[in-house]
Parts: sequence; structure tokens; C-alpha cells
Amino acid sequence: MPYVNIRITREGATPEQKAKLIEGVTRLLRETLGKNPATTVVTIDEVETDNWGIGGETVTARRKRGQ
Amino acid sequence: MPYVNIRITREGATPEQKAKLIEGVTRLLRETLGKNPATTVVTIDEVETDNWGIGGETVTARRKRGQ
Amino acid sequence: MPYVNIRITREGATPEQKAKLIEGVTRLLRETLGKNPATTVVTIDEVETDNWGIGGETVTARRKRGQ
Amino acid sequence: MPYVNIRITREGATPEQKAKLIEGVTRLLRETLGKNPATTVVTIDEVETDNWGIGGETVTARRKRGQ
Amino acid sequence: MPYVNIRITREGATPEQKAKLIEGVTRLLRETLGKNPATTVVTIDEVETDNWGIGGETVTARRKRGQ
Amino acid sequence: MPYVNIRITREGATPEQKAKLIEGVTRLLRETLGKNPATTVVTIDEVETDNWGIGGETVTARRKRGQ
Repeated sequence: MPYVNIRITREGATPEQKAKLIEGVTRLLRETLGKNPATTVVTIDEVETDNWGIGGETVTARRKRGQ
Repeated sequence: MPYVNIRITREGATPEQKAKLIEGVTRLLRETLGKNPATTVVTIDEVETDNWGIGGETVTARRKRGQ
Repeated sequence: MPYVNIRITREGATPEQKAKLIEGVTRLLRETLGKNPATTVVTIDEVETDNWGIGGETVTARRKRGQ
Repeated sequence: MPYVNIRITREGATPEQKAKLIEGVTRLLRETLGKNPATTVVTIDEVETDNWGIGGETVTARRKRGQ
Repeated sequence: MPYVNIRITREGATPEQKAKLIEGVTRLLRETLGKNPATTVVTIDEVETDNWGIGGETVTARRKRGQ
Repeated sequence: MPYVNIRITREGATPEQKAKLIEGVTRLLRETLGKNPATTVVTIDEVETDNWGIGGETVTARRKRGQ
């Protein structure tokens, strides 16, 4: 009954990509730790680039510089 | 001074229901553990069904199958 | 299939109190939002008083002052 | 490589204020604990006032009363 | 620069299993969303069975019943 | 009434350092966003190096290589 929270920047992940991510993490937990997929919960948070910082600056600022 | 985070799928919870949830959790923490309501914080995150997975698939996919 | 995380200071909550809290939150989610108890997950994090701050100081410091 | 999550009510924080917050927290972690800014991640969650409770009521209700 | 938090019950996961989980999630994020492994952070929280509830009861209680 | 969660590896942060961190973050939120220190909550999670991954490997493995 694991709970997994995945946080990424909101930059266009498609429903198909998110479905694959959920499927993949659930399978990984079964293969690695024997966790039951039926009670494995995965949530994905898409965070605005203004609200995500790394290296002391926002991702918005980094993207403007081409990073 | 507890902090409670409640995560549910975004499927139409009303402001009244959310207010009841906040009131109920705060009361429960006072009754069960003697926690001071004045400093009890409760946040509710409503997560898109595309971003919530259980059993290796999204809630969107489950809802389409009538689950 | 809600996920609830309750964070409290580690100050002697008993297994019985924690079981009551889990039972109470699960019931509240069913009564308020019709959520299925079978897939409602609740986790409790007990945080050391040195690691919890409010009003700009640790709970350890507050407890020493009798608060 | 710290990870910091800041949760505030959604009440008009500007991109400039959020950038300052990210910069300030990153600097604080370097000064206090010697953490490398390059791998310090900060995320900010802005939560609707209907979804934030304190003292057993929503922030929406408190704001209506002028608090 | 994704951030992933995996929460499992504390029931004997080995350092090798946890290392595999971290490696697997990081690879999955690269393959699914093109995320850079160098800045992908994964944390694992192992939660006591007294502090994890599902179906309104603790995992401790479930384990005693053989579930 | 912000809530801040700071996650660092468990590598010897002292109570004094943690108190400074709590004080500094609380002050930063007042200066940057005008948040009331009295209801600002900060929690610090210290995570074992076996349970923290970056670049697809655990911090334990990185430390062994001198990183």
C-alpha cells in the first residue's frame, strides 16, 4: 500500500505520459519490494515554473536563459 | 499545532463539504490527542483524475470503465 | 481513495490514540464526501520537537518556557 | 541537496515575491547548514482559501469576518 | 529536476532494495518525460505500521489478522 | 499561516542550526510576503542517506565516493 508523490514542473506532460509514469512506478514497487499494485497510490503534482526553484532561481528565469 | 494534508481527486467537492472536513478533522485532533484547534492547520489538495493513479492506472481510466 | 497525512509533534501519542485518529479520519471522509474507506490511506508523522517550529522558534524552546 | 516545500494561501503573491522567497531560502540553507545552492530545490504551493483551514474554519470564512 | 517521495511501511526494506527503487524511478522519469537524472531527487519515507492506516485501521492491526 | 517543510539528509544538523533555520524561514516569510510569524509553521525532516537519492543513486553511495 505505498503512496508515491511525483512533483514535476508544469511544462506539457500529456495524459498518456502521466498514465505511463503511474503504471511504471506501480510496477517498479511490485518488482523491487513486492508491493501490491491494487493498493499502490501515485499522485502527480505539476508545479508552475514560477513556483519551482533550483540553484536559488525560478525555473522560469532559467528557461529564459535557455536552460 | 498539528498540520494535516488531505488529498482527494478533483471531482466536485463543494466549499461546504470542504469546510465540514476541516471542522471535523480539527475537532477529531482535539478529542483524540488534546490538540489546540487554534493552531491546527488543515489543507486540502484536489488532484486531477489524470494525475491520480491506483492499481497502476489513472482514475480517469477507471471512471471510464464505470469504477 | 483519499490520502491523508497527519503531522504532530512526537510527544507520547499512544498506539491506541493513533488507531482512533486513523479510524476517525476515515469515517469523516466517508460521511462528508462519500469516500470509500477500503482505499482511504492515512499516515501519521511524529516530528521531534527540535524539528518543529511555530512563531519562529522550536517547540522544544516553547515547552521549556511552559507553553 | 535539500528539498523545501512552502505552502501559502493563494492571495496574490507576485512572481517577484516568489523569486525572492526561493532565493532567500536557498541562501539560508547555505549559510545555516552549508548546503550547496546548485542542488537546493524549492517549490511553492499556493492553496485556495476554501482549501486551507485554521482554528477549524476555512481562511475564506475568516477573511469574510475581516481576519 | 523532478522530486519524488515514496512512502512505504517500515517492514525491512534493505539498502539494496531502496537503491534499486531510486535508480528505477530516476530512469523511468528520463524515459517517460525526458527528465535529467542529474537533478532528479528521490526520497523514501519508511513509516511505522502503527502510523499507517488503510480501511480505517492500522497496518499493525491488519498484520495481526494475517493480512 | 504558511506551512514550510524542509527536507535534508540526516548528517548531524545540531539543534542550534535547526533553530536558526526555523527562525530564518519565518522571518523571510514575513519580510517577503507579510506573513504573520505567530502562525507560521516550519517542520524539518532529516532523511537517512540510504533513503535519499540524486542522479539515480543514494547519498550513501555518493558519500563513499567522496561526493
